[in-house]
Amino acid sequence: MRIGLDIGGTKTDAVVLARDGRELARVRRPSGFGADEVIASADIAAREAVTQAGARLSEVTSVGVGIPGVIDEATGRVQHAVNLGVADLHLAEVLSARLGAPVFVENDVKAASLGAWHLLHLSGSAALLNFGTGLAAGVVVDGRLWRGARGTAGEIGHVPVDPAGVACSCGQVGCLETIASGSAIARMWPTSAALPALDLFDRADDGDPEAARVRDVFVGGVAQAVRLLTLSVDIETVVIGGGLSALGRRLHEPVLDIFAQWARSSAFLASLDLAERTRMLPADAAVAAVGAAMLGTVPEFA
Amino acid sequence: MRIGLDIGGTKTDAVVLARDGRELARVRRPSGFGADEVIASADIAAREAVTQAGARLSEVTSVGVGIPGVIDEATGRVQHAVNLGVADLHLAEVLSARLGAPVFVENDVKAASLGAWHLLHLSGSAALLNFGTGLAAGVVVDGRLWRGARGTAGEIGHVPVDPAGVACSCGQVGCLETIASGSAIARMWPTSAALPALDLFDRADDGDPEAARVRDVFVGGVAQAVRLLTLSVDIETVVIGGGLSALGRRLHEPVLDIFAQWARSSAFLASLDLAERTRMLPADAAVAAVGAAMLGTVPEFA
Repeated sequence: MRIGLDIGGTKTDAVVLARDGRELARVRRPSGFGADEVIASADIAAREAVTQAGARLSEVTSVGVGIPGVIDEATGRVQHAVNLGVADLHLAEVLSARLGAPVFVENDVKAASLGAWHLLHLSGSAALLNFGTGLAAGVVVDGRLWRGARGTAGEIGHVPVDPAGVACSCGQVGCLETIASGSAIARMWPTSAALPALDLFDRADDGDPEAARVRDVFVGGVAQAVRLLTLSVDIETVVIGGGLSALGRRLHEPVLDIFAQWARSSAFLASLDLAERTRMLPADAAVAAVGAAMLGTVPEFA
Repeated sequence: MRIGLDIGGTKTDAVVLARDGRELARVRRPSGFGADEVIASADIAAREAVTQAGARLSEVTSVGVGIPGVIDEATGRVQHAVNLGVADLHLAEVLSARLGAPVFVENDVKAASLGAWHLLHLSGSAALLNFGTGLAAGVVVDGRLWRGARGTAGEIGHVPVDPAGVACSCGQVGCLETIASGSAIARMWPTSAALPALDLFDRADDGDPEAARVRDVFVGGVAQAVRLLTLSVDIETVVIGGGLSALGRRLHEPVLDIFAQWARSSAFLASLDLAERTRMLPADAAVAAVGAAMLGTVPEFA
């Protein structure tokens, strides 16, 4: 029995998976802020999930954690998890002592890519494009995380795609993240609505020309991200995930429209079959928690 | 003893490698045009190289061929090798019957990436950025070619990087290849000089402002290509190769200047260590022929 934890800026998800990968329990708790509170809320979520699964902590063979920030996956140390108020935390060590099982820690997007690979029953190679506040992709090849030489594989959010674009927080100009991310929508579509992306898409559907323009820029950026991953890493399947994937068909369909348009103007792009290689993450998937639970169970690239 | 052939649009290089990888002989012949002549010139080059090595054809255990075009590497079939006048050729079958050894066929840029990995004694992961008429990269991981799911891994020449750019032959706009390739230089710097890139760099050094501007665009594109590969595939080493790498230090130094400039304006880019991860291909390396000779000797990714 394995526990997977997804520690996000606002909430912590915990799942319990059986040996065969079946989800036995799922719990959501608010995330704590600061190292001690992050550990405490993760601990509680894990224990509650085990209880919900009708099991005991002693039956847990491993705990995996997906968390934003700079991760040393060999030691389970987390640094610069700014949204969680964590500057430096030996997460694996501390949590392992509390839960009595080995703890594996991974960047949340990378964990989510592993989760998507398993939940969607993918084979070969795949990438999860994570459209959250920022934009990054996790790459999985044959069920194993592909980190690249220095851990920046799939960091396509910071590939500049428009010299006339806006300044990016990374110090560059016109990065893909400046048009295809939650922060991009927040900048391009200032609103007091609780869900800015949903508000943007609603207004665009209502016929607001500025909303339609901004939506098209964003959707175009999403399509560009799929193309970029296909032309560089060339994974078989691209999964659109992250918070903005909750838009579901409302995002998927205009992206497919763009692929169709591209295919008409370029035989080269048509040959890439982008439409059939792109999947949406199911809205209710605890993808990072499930992927975290897989950590330590699959061999890694050297 | 292995033969490696690099069949290019104008010349065919043949090398003979000893079992330990040492180069025993190297021969260059003009390439034939059309399927029959391409086979004939490859056959002659291979036999001359074996003779130069003081060996006999019966000692050759395998023949590898790097050739442009669409390759089915499983069967050794070549299609659409336009510059060679080859529409459809079962190259492995025909050449194997002539030379009496198994023949492996690979796209020339992919073969060259394998050759660079061996010639530069690289380890881990690496990409050869091939700046020829077009722009593409070959990716090698742990000595094995990384083709991707459908063979487009490293096809970064057709990643659009400027919506205000010029139309690309692929049907898109502002592709990286439209600024960072031989065809880009030919378009941006029309000249009757035999070596347009050399003429461009000479004129720029002489103080011609338009030449300096075009050179800067081109060099900027080369730097962008390195950044793009690093942020997507994240190979440890990027090797600048292809015909334009003959510019040597005159290309390498301004690319390093750009990396330094980027590092000053972006801590994120500084953290990528682009300068120390970028190498120039030695001018005299028969890199595609050597890589071709390695074909069939290293295991492949599934």
